[in-house]
Amino acid sequence: MYSEVSLNTINDKGPFLTTILFSVQDRVGVLDECLSSIRNLNVSLTRIESRPSKTPGWDYDFFVDFSAENAEQLTRIVTTLEEITNQVKVVSATTTNAIAGQVPWFPRKKSDLDTFANKVLEMGEELDSDHPGANDPVYRARRSEITRIAKTYRHGQPIPEIQYKPEEVSTWGTVLRNLMDLYPTHACREHQYVFPLLIQNCGYRVDNIPQLESVSRFLKECTGFTLRPVMGLLTSRDFLNGLAFRVFHSTQYIRHHSKPFYTPEPDVCHELLGHAPLFCDPDFADFSQEIGLSSLGASDDDIEKLSTIYWFTVEFGLCRQENEIRAYGAGLLSSYGELNYALSENPEKRPFDPSKTALQKYIVTEYQPIYFVAESFKDAQQKVREFAKTLNRPFSVRYNPYTESVEVLDNKEKIIRYTQNIKNDMTILIDALERIH
Amino acid sequence: MYSEVSLNTINDKGPFLTTILFSVQDRVGVLDECLSSIRNLNVSLTRIESRPSKTPGWDYDFFVDFSAENAEQLTRIVTTLEEITNQVKVVSATTTNAIAGQVPWFPRKKSDLDTFANKVLEMGEELDSDHPGANDPVYRARRSEITRIAKTYRHGQPIPEIQYKPEEVSTWGTVLRNLMDLYPTHACREHQYVFPLLIQNCGYRVDNIPQLESVSRFLKECTGFTLRPVMGLLTSRDFLNGLAFRVFHSTQYIRHHSKPFYTPEPDVCHELLGHAPLFCDPDFADFSQEIGLSSLGASDDDIEKLSTIYWFTVEFGLCRQENEIRAYGAGLLSSYGELNYALSENPEKRPFDPSKTALQKYIVTEYQPIYFVAESFKDAQQKVREFAKTLNRPFSVRYNPYTESVEVLDNKEKIIRYTQNIKNDMTILIDALERIH
Amino acid sequence: MYSEVSLNTINDKGPFLTTILFSVQDRVGVLDECLSSIRNLNVSLTRIESRPSKTPGWDYDFFVDFSAENAEQLTRIVTTLEEITNQVKVVSATTTNAIAGQVPWFPRKKSDLDTFANKVLEMGEELDSDHPGANDPVYRARRSEITRIAKTYRHGQPIPEIQYKPEEVSTWGTVLRNLMDLYPTHACREHQYVFPLLIQNCGYRVDNIPQLESVSRFLKECTGFTLRPVMGLLTSRDFLNGLAFRVFHSTQYIRHHSKPFYTPEPDVCHELLGHAPLFCDPDFADFSQEIGLSSLGASDDDIEKLSTIYWFTVEFGLCRQENEIRAYGAGLLSSYGELNYALSENPEKRPFDPSKTALQKYIVTEYQPIYFVAESFKDAQQKVREFAKTLNRPFSVRYNPYTESVEVLDNKEKIIRYTQNIKNDMTILIDALERIH
Amino acid sequence: MYSEVSLNTINDKGPFLTTILFSVQDRVGVLDECLSSIRNLNVSLTRIESRPSKTPGWDYDFFVDFSAENAEQLTRIVTTLEEITNQVKVVSATTTNAIAGQVPWFPRKKSDLDTFANKVLEMGEELDSDHPGANDPVYRARRSEITRIAKTYRHGQPIPEIQYKPEEVSTWGTVLRNLMDLYPTHACREHQYVFPLLIQNCGYRVDNIPQLESVSRFLKECTGFTLRPVMGLLTSRDFLNGLAFRVFHSTQYIRHHSKPFYTPEPDVCHELLGHAPLFCDPDFADFSQEIGLSSLGASDDDIEKLSTIYWFTVEFGLCRQENEIRAYGAGLLSSYGELNYALSENPEKRPFDPSKTALQKYIVTEYQPIYFVAESFKDAQQKVREFAKTLNRPFSVRYNPYTESVEVLDNKEKIIRYTQNIKNDMTILIDALERIH
Repeated sequence: MYSEVSLNTINDKGPFLTTILFSVQDRVGVLDECLSSIRNLNVSLTRIESRPSKTPGWDYDFFVDFSAENAEQLTRIVTTLEEITNQVKVVSATTTNAIAGQVPWFPRKKSDLDTFANKVLEMGEELDSDHPGANDPVYRARRSEITRIAKTYRHGQPIPEIQYKPEEVSTWGTVLRNLMDLYPTHACREHQYVFPLLIQNCGYRVDNIPQLESVSRFLKECTGFTLRPVMGLLTSRDFLNGLAFRVFHSTQYIRHHSKPFYTPEPDVCHELLGHAPLFCDPDFADFSQEIGLSSLGASDDDIEKLSTIYWFTVEFGLCRQENEIRAYGAGLLSSYGELNYALSENPEKRPFDPSKTALQKYIVTEYQPIYFVAESFKDAQQKVREFAKTLNRPFSVRYNPYTESVEVLDNKEKIIRYTQNIKNDMTILIDALERIH
Repeated sequence: MYSEVSLNTINDKGPFLTTILFSVQDRVGVLDECLSSIRNLNVSLTRIESRPSKTPGWDYDFFVDFSAENAEQLTRIVTTLEEITNQVKVVSATTTNAIAGQVPWFPRKKSDLDTFANKVLEMGEELDSDHPGANDPVYRARRSEITRIAKTYRHGQPIPEIQYKPEEVSTWGTVLRNLMDLYPTHACREHQYVFPLLIQNCGYRVDNIPQLESVSRFLKECTGFTLRPVMGLLTSRDFLNGLAFRVFHSTQYIRHHSKPFYTPEPDVCHELLGHAPLFCDPDFADFSQEIGLSSLGASDDDIEKLSTIYWFTVEFGLCRQENEIRAYGAGLLSSYGELNYALSENPEKRPFDPSKTALQKYIVTEYQPIYFVAESFKDAQQKVREFAKTLNRPFSVRYNPYTESVEVLDNKEKIIRYTQNIKNDMTILIDALERIH
Repeated sequence: MYSEVSLNTINDKGPFLTTILFSVQDRVGVLDECLSSIRNLNVSLTRIESRPSKTPGWDYDFFVDFSAENAEQLTRIVTTLEEITNQVKVVSATTTNAIAGQVPWFPRKKSDLDTFANKVLEMGEELDSDHPGANDPVYRARRSEITRIAKTYRHGQPIPEIQYKPEEVSTWGTVLRNLMDLYPTHACREHQYVFPLLIQNCGYRVDNIPQLESVSRFLKECTGFTLRPVMGLLTSRDFLNGLAFRVFHSTQYIRHHSKPFYTPEPDVCHELLGHAPLFCDPDFADFSQEIGLSSLGASDDDIEKLSTIYWFTVEFGLCRQENEIRAYGAGLLSSYGELNYALSENPEKRPFDPSKTALQKYIVTEYQPIYFVAESFKDAQQKVREFAKTLNRPFSVRYNPYTESVEVLDNKEKIIRYTQNIKNDMTILIDALERIH
Repeated sequence: MYSEVSLNTINDKGPFLTTILFSVQDRVGVLDECLSSIRNLNVSLTRIESRPSKTPGWDYDFFVDFSAENAEQLTRIVTTLEEITNQVKVVSATTTNAIAGQVPWFPRKKSDLDTFANKVLEMGEELDSDHPGANDPVYRARRSEITRIAKTYRHGQPIPEIQYKPEEVSTWGTVLRNLMDLYPTHACREHQYVFPLLIQNCGYRVDNIPQLESVSRFLKECTGFTLRPVMGLLTSRDFLNGLAFRVFHSTQYIRHHSKPFYTPEPDVCHELLGHAPLFCDPDFADFSQEIGLSSLGASDDDIEKLSTIYWFTVEFGLCRQENEIRAYGAGLLSSYGELNYALSENPEKRPFDPSKTALQKYIVTEYQPIYFVAESFKDAQQKVREFAKTLNRPFSVRYNPYTESVEVLDNKEKIIRYTQNIKNDMTILIDALERIH
């Protein structure tokens, strides 16, 4: 069920960042044999792990990451391993662009998100010419300095603290001060509820930019969400995949001081004012993770649909609360201008309906002409869940929060274990009911 | 439902390590008001946290930790807070020894285990006179050096690496070499299965003592268990409470080189050879956590029963596998002598039955005269589960692995949310069934 | 939770058909004492039953039915019983029309439906002047002869067979022949699937009118639905209440031979051609019962909403199947004219949305100007389920198919028992998963 | 998954009572074609039914019962049907005694129990020489008169009333009077609780033998159990199979008046005093049905085990209640002598443990030397459930109380539908939790 790369469909040149997964059955010395075979391959390995196998009929799984110089080398390695076991899969070989008929690669454990660290769509190092800081070498140097943190950050580490410059704090303060005027009348109930806690616990103040690490710890305690520093925009697939692990990729630099109310890319104001407060809400956390889980191994078409839904909900969603329309999308909650505009009578507002919303075109660079209004927050959640069922991925996944890994429910044993878990939960429920007054 | 300390039952002298929990309802400025009240108390706070309230009818919960010099100061602080809200609870005031009629304090989140760091029953700094290293000042200094790591370790940090001395490695090698002769015939299937993986992935070798951090990471990926360094023996309550969070408190020092086959206390050989392999097994992990969850807030009597069960299972358990008796208890799997003895015809072997086992006396310092044999590993698990239901704790708990915290299921809202989670799991199950072939 | 009648709100004259429910606690001779008290009341009892109590804290429940001549007598009876127990409830006193603030009476077991036998809204005995048979004394006599069966029918009896007259069979044959031309292109998949089975097993033929008893037995084996003969139109409440027990009230007489394609009231053609086939489908059966369960004890407003939904689904529903619109409503499937018309381009077709559909006005006497189209049959089911949750009945019910009774889930013990049932079902599920290949 | 008879294993002579099940796919005229084929076979059919198919991939199932004169005729019939469809199964051919490797026939719906009506092991017509009435021609004639009712009784009919003779009533009265002295001290709580209700509702009096129909109706309302008249002893398989449908086969005649305290066979005293009260208890009803469900299609060995367990629980079970031992087995509760003896110190009493109890030999004709004591009534239930899981039937069944039929959960579609039912029950549970105070 893991995405498997068919070697003869590879027609790109190397080098290939490759992950091979192979399984062996228990017999004396088999692990040693595997390891020495791998070492003899004379490739530069970046990871070797052996784990209890999750595939029935096999005992151990090996995960081997390496860089293959070209397709021949890759083929030779596979052939060598096939002398040990016939259960060898090239899980990914990331230079290849289009691998027809395959389930795309997806992260299987939280630490696999480390592989995204370098993969940024744009504005990683270079800024677009229309970026307010494009011609400011000091800004660009500072931005690079901060993104280096994201580049080297690895799972499990605390997020390094940034000593923000007075100019940066001032930009943040300007943005925050303005938005706080609008929140009481424009932000959804969930945002208003948690904002004072962020002030008290994470240092949200006009004279202080909160540290990602502090906000991430707070989120972890509320819902298990964590922040992870990112250099810039990830692909939709990578970004949504992160949500499956309750990981939100967050920038750490700030917009250019010359235009405090405008940024062409996510920045720390957008992340901390728009996104973080909502991730404190258990229902919103469930909802976001569900989009993420649906995106794992999804087809390119389905990724596009899911990311359009993400756009019109997590980024630009409106909802009805006590007969008023309020904003819950981060793109609105971090923009004084668009927050005002979105709740005015100017833009068109349609009822949120994922099967239609998923097909709506949108523009990234201007205020949205159309917003989608959820009847309630729960309602959006349920509708997205129903929609996700219609996507055509040939398997189902569940997230194991203990091991922070994704399990593909593709065989009887896994399904039985999962069903037993549910039954155990029923036992706890009955016990709780019996003890309650 | 949190354990509440009745102030007028406190007759000990201070100082008191105190945790106060109070809840407030949302109104303008309420969080500020609380904080300034707390600051005006003029006590040395070690923690202030405000979080979304889990108590229906209240909006925010505050957790405040401080050291109160005496009962008067404690009372004064409570009175001050009661001017703000009538929902104030002294959750713990740990100098007090017996607080009649109270649910004992228990950790509510994984980081609360930090409070155990200093609380060691014995052999923390001093060694008993019959400890083989009692009169070896070099050994004692080395032991102290290592336990300092445990003392300063805090949740979320990587466990510091120890550069073991050649003499220490040699002791480990002697122990390991001997045991590996016995494992194929004496260890349970689960231990044998995972041992080669520990060799491959974590450096289990006669010439190398594995690092706790490396083993802990491996466990985390298998079952979500983690190791946490500890200075020495914790109280039964603290130790079992840790298991509720899938945390195993593990020593990092090694027995005295003069007696490689004997140790009067847990050491790194015991932990890594006896305990760690079993915690890789999902069923055993569930089982251990269940004992832990049962111990949270349990009465002293129930703690004693649970820890006797722990003794005769996790430490000294035998089980029947394919008509042979095998060992799964860590005390056996880490002792060449007792492992041999236990499976011989000398000791008495009784069927494992928690209601009887819980009342069996045992001695810590010699080989056990009685062992309990589980019909199967699953069987032990199920029997303990049934037994736990008979304990008389007035509430039920569930563990939330996302937030790494324990939730007391003591009101309708929490039970409904929990039931909805189960129903959502059913949705995933149905989806998985539909997509499977 | 049973609907309780407040005696001082009764301002109607009698006689009152009354049901009293009272509960007693077990002590020596208590049942005898109760019975002799009741006998001394000197009223004409139509039922006395004592049963194991379903109310925690009480041991036995008594159900006593009688006819009270006036409010004084009723009050005196209650007073007498209150000398034995303070747990006395006047469950219903059916002459009273409006009892403010009460949960309306509802049947608690299948045999309670016997109380509907006499309660017919209209056309029980008299026919409207525009009924094609209004001025045909032979037809009216025949109709009366058949409705007498319904009047005397009691739960558990086989439905008496009718020897239909040649003229009646000929009317049926005319209707059936015409409709069978339309079914392949106009009826939904479920109807087409089961129709041949009704032909083979229940004698659906142009020269034979099937007997209700035979069709009812067939339905029972398919889905547990049964037919029950009825004199004419019941109130919406009574009719919907029947569905809660999977009982469909069905007429047994046939329309006037002069107008084989028209009937102003349900007749055997409508029931057997329109309704019966759908009740063979498990999903449709679930759906119909769910409307029924929602109607038990519902407010008058909610009854009106539910019966409007019933109208636009079970009677006149359209659905989309493989990109075509098909009919599943019985009013369409039993009317050549309206079936043709409904699928033509003339009437308006709106997407089915219970919250809107429930408020749509309709006329009974003409073709519908508006039909509601379900995206799929399942979709209608799910949407109605969501809608039902929004109704404001203060309790939840579940149907126990073993005892053919309705249980009000209004206390902890019942909820725990119910939860244990669910857990037991999980055990069966796991067992089934384990044994499947 | 239905038991299928392999034709070439049949070596018995006929005639064979045969049931054939075949499935067809929907196409024009297929049902007609099948029926005319069957009619052309020129055998005497006792049942033809076509139903919606429960086998995925097939549309309709046919059930055909007939008597085949010999193996050739049976083979010819099968061959003929195979010209229509390759999905033909000989479900049973009951003359054949041992059909190796087959799942034995079992009833699939409640009305299938009609096939047991004639199959009585012994004492149907003839009495053993040691029967107290063996030489009393009047008794034997009366007994025959009553058993004729059982012989002709069919599912769905009310059980005919018996006008018991004064002598018979007197025997009953003698038995009842004596036992009522013992019940307060010897019968289990459940029996004592319900007995007054049987007195009040079903005419349990010393001067009246209750009618089966009246008791059966009362049971139906309590737990859904019903009584069905039987001529005498059924085979263990048939008898246990009945319990799967919550049907208890009950004799209607009474023991010989010469020995009111002795009967070598079940009689109406045994059924009504011993069994009926317990079947009013929901837990006992669940427990009994579970034994029944386990027996459907079980191997002969497993039937023997289950019927031994039945013997030592439902017939002769003791249980501990508030530290006293009490009787809940019907064989005890209907015998003054053995009830006294069983609770005395004379017989051996062992803890109930199904895996051991199932292997215990027993004698039918004397007081038991060994009884098994359940720790509690619930405990017996749970232990039997665990035991049943160890039986080696290759499939799992569930009972559908709506259709009164057994469903074999042997394919994905059925399991999914079942899982959806469970999820729907969760929805009701959540709704109930939300509405409760």
